[in-house]
Amino acid sequence: MVTETARTDSIMALAAQAKAASGILAQRTGAEKNAALLHIAQKLNDRAAEILAANQADREAARLLVESGEMSDAMFQRLKLDAAKLADVVAGVQQVAKLEDPVGKITLATELDEGLRLYRVNCPIGVVGVIFESRPDALVQIAALCLKSSNSVLLKGGREAEKTNRVLAETIREAIEEAGLPGDCLALLDSREDVNAMLGAEGLVDLIIPRGSNALVRYIQQNTNIPVLGHADGICHLYVDRAADFGKALKLTVDAKAQYPAVCNAIETLLIHQEIAGNFLPQVVEALQQAKVEVRCAASDIETYQLEGVKVATEADWTTEYGDYILSIKTVVSIEEAIAHINRYGSRHTETIVTEDAAAFEKFFAEVDSAGVFLNASTRFADGYRYGFGAEVGISTYKLHPRGPVGLEGLVTYKYKLIGNGHLVATYSGKEAKPFTHKPIQ
Amino acid sequence: MVTETARTDSIMALAAQAKAASGILAQRTGAEKNAALLHIAQKLNDRAAEILAANQADREAARLLVESGEMSDAMFQRLKLDAAKLADVVAGVQQVAKLEDPVGKITLATELDEGLRLYRVNCPIGVVGVIFESRPDALVQIAALCLKSSNSVLLKGGREAEKTNRVLAETIREAIEEAGLPGDCLALLDSREDVNAMLGAEGLVDLIIPRGSNALVRYIQQNTNIPVLGHADGICHLYVDRAADFGKALKLTVDAKAQYPAVCNAIETLLIHQEIAGNFLPQVVEALQQAKVEVRCAASDIETYQLEGVKVATEADWTTEYGDYILSIKTVVSIEEAIAHINRYGSRHTETIVTEDAAAFEKFFAEVDSAGVFLNASTRFADGYRYGFGAEVGISTYKLHPRGPVGLEGLVTYKYKLIGNGHLVATYSGKEAKPFTHKPIQ
Repeated sequence: MVTETARTDSIMALAAQAKAASGILAQRTGAEKNAALLHIAQKLNDRAAEILAANQADREAARLLVESGEMSDAMFQRLKLDAAKLADVVAGVQQVAKLEDPVGKITLATELDEGLRLYRVNCPIGVVGVIFESRPDALVQIAALCLKSSNSVLLKGGREAEKTNRVLAETIREAIEEAGLPGDCLALLDSREDVNAMLGAEGLVDLIIPRGSNALVRYIQQNTNIPVLGHADGICHLYVDRAADFGKALKLTVDAKAQYPAVCNAIETLLIHQEIAGNFLPQVVEALQQAKVEVRCAASDIETYQLEGVKVATEADWTTEYGDYILSIKTVVSIEEAIAHINRYGSRHTETIVTEDAAAFEKFFAEVDSAGVFLNASTRFADGYRYGFGAEVGISTYKLHPRGPVGLEGLVTYKYKLIGNGHLVATYSGKEAKPFTHKPIQ
Repeated sequence: MVTETARTDSIMALAAQAKAASGILAQRTGAEKNAALLHIAQKLNDRAAEILAANQADREAARLLVESGEMSDAMFQRLKLDAAKLADVVAGVQQVAKLEDPVGKITLATELDEGLRLYRVNCPIGVVGVIFESRPDALVQIAALCLKSSNSVLLKGGREAEKTNRVLAETIREAIEEAGLPGDCLALLDSREDVNAMLGAEGLVDLIIPRGSNALVRYIQQNTNIPVLGHADGICHLYVDRAADFGKALKLTVDAKAQYPAVCNAIETLLIHQEIAGNFLPQVVEALQQAKVEVRCAASDIETYQLEGVKVATEADWTTEYGDYILSIKTVVSIEEAIAHINRYGSRHTETIVTEDAAAFEKFFAEVDSAGVFLNASTRFADGYRYGFGAEVGISTYKLHPRGPVGLEGLVTYKYKLIGNGHLVATYSGKEAKPFTHKPIQ
């Protein structure tokens, strides 16, 4: 058995190697990284039988856990990697190869003075630690996005997908090395102890991305000084304004709640402007009940609108992510009250207003403090693939960059590059100071 | 005397008002904000006598502290706000009015499908808490940058500048209100207890910017869950490559160390490639000694190069921010060792390589993990004003956005705006899924 200190040392060493690998990747061209991605896709196809067999073994072990009630059926379903899903995964890697290289992009260029040129250049974040739940296809997606953005990645998957993850990681690492890039840019962690060691590797690991239960995300946030990208809660809202089109509002409510309620971008609370509640509320309750959604309303609303088959919502409902076929509903006297409710109880993820009033949307967009603020569209569109990012490593409810679904652009930061020819600050200081030109470089 | 709970409640109320004010500012045009900035400049001029008198009173009180040894002379100098300095401050506000409005800028526009359009739109961060040291002109600069970027700001200045800060804040707040914008976007905190209450106002205060001693910054970082923008250390390096031009290297070293050693972008360690150390090291030691800089070298280097009047550097020197006329020097066997030293001991602030070898710079730029990586230019250029940002609220050594000197662009984040017309995710899911178009919108 390995001691804890030895374990920490070995994770530190792994992280240091990963850091060096990211520095090397940052100097490789987009073409080199794309060739490596296509080689990964090729090798995943070549080793398909081995990958599917490993997944079969993981699923057999997991089936026992489902039978004994230790694993949910939903989790068991997510574990599955069959030939069709593997083909999708491979296509996803090929897709990432087609995206623009986010590294090296210049986002600011200014001549400070003759011969003194400042550039802001996108660069990788460095070493990213990802802790993810049972879906083994996530491993491939994350690895592809990190490689493309010249980041190294330390991956820790769920124990239930251990065999699948191991074969996938080995395959990808081999392909990277065969393509002439540093294999150390990807490593698989083994245990919870490894994760804890990684959480302490400040300065070596630059970003932690937890993808899993709210409890996991909170645990990570509370146990590291490394920046954490992600979200613990996905408490999204749909607000039906007094100027809403009822037909759109009904369909959007059902889509945003019931199309797939387990995900973070599904809504948990529906807000309805009082002026239209008399007409709209009974209709939407009926539509939701037909879609098998349990409805919870404030007691006063149940009475006022004589709602049937509706439970009473309490304060706790406004802060609960059901992740299930349950929706809380509240009437509000104004758009201001809707915005205040969202900013108070929401998780800064994604909110929709249904309205035909452009000014109402502009106000809602400016004042709602969330990563996504939508007009007449389902909150469920908040997703890296749907946004056109190819894929995502996660969705951030953090306010600074990266915010919202995080694809390649969210995996880069920037450095300022200043090119001089012996330029001294003394020249530009004091009474005889030379002025700066500060001209944009075209 | 106010109880601690009452104090916390009142800071929470202040922060909530500031939050609402930011939402209102976000809906105002650039022209409206610029008019308010010009009105602030006007009012600062109108009330100049009152401002200078308040500063005179602060300085008289501070003089006693200098005499009793409780305040350094440097701090006393920074406290001074005379007519000339006030004119500079006013000019700075007028300058900020001329900069481009960072809010509302669209950085991504994609048609997801017919009638479904995604935009990434820059928006204010919200409420920014700034704790700053004795320079009262910083208050005006920060207030101007925050107003321009539609952020609200809670300000806590040093006690020694209390009277000056109060008149400045009152003047600015009045000008904002007279210009028809919400005065609640600026508030002055009174005490350390207020600061502690602000550090606990997660969800109401979105970003904390400490500008002061390393100890202050560390205290803030350790006592809040709100993101902190800033830097505790400024351990910058200058590396003289084997392909360096000696003339440039000598002048750059003296400029980067001795032009103003108290600031974070001055260098603390000079790294020299071994191949040229025999020639260069004695020359640079002499130049530094002429500039009254105390030099510390590794014992082996002192012996090898027979250096005179040089102290022995120990491990602790590599992690020390002297902030004074002291420089540690180390010879390295390769550029790789220089990069490794910087990434291990540096603070990710700013580093310079002096070389005529373009490939060496490219390697240095890619592998050094700092916000600024310069070629043949003094590290002292790392500054918002010199970068052409007009001004700065601080310099960030955080890796994600905002990184480096933070001006207006660093004071905005973004939201995703999705405009639909009843678009459902169900349409784009399952076997009959409609494909996305993902076309860039011109």
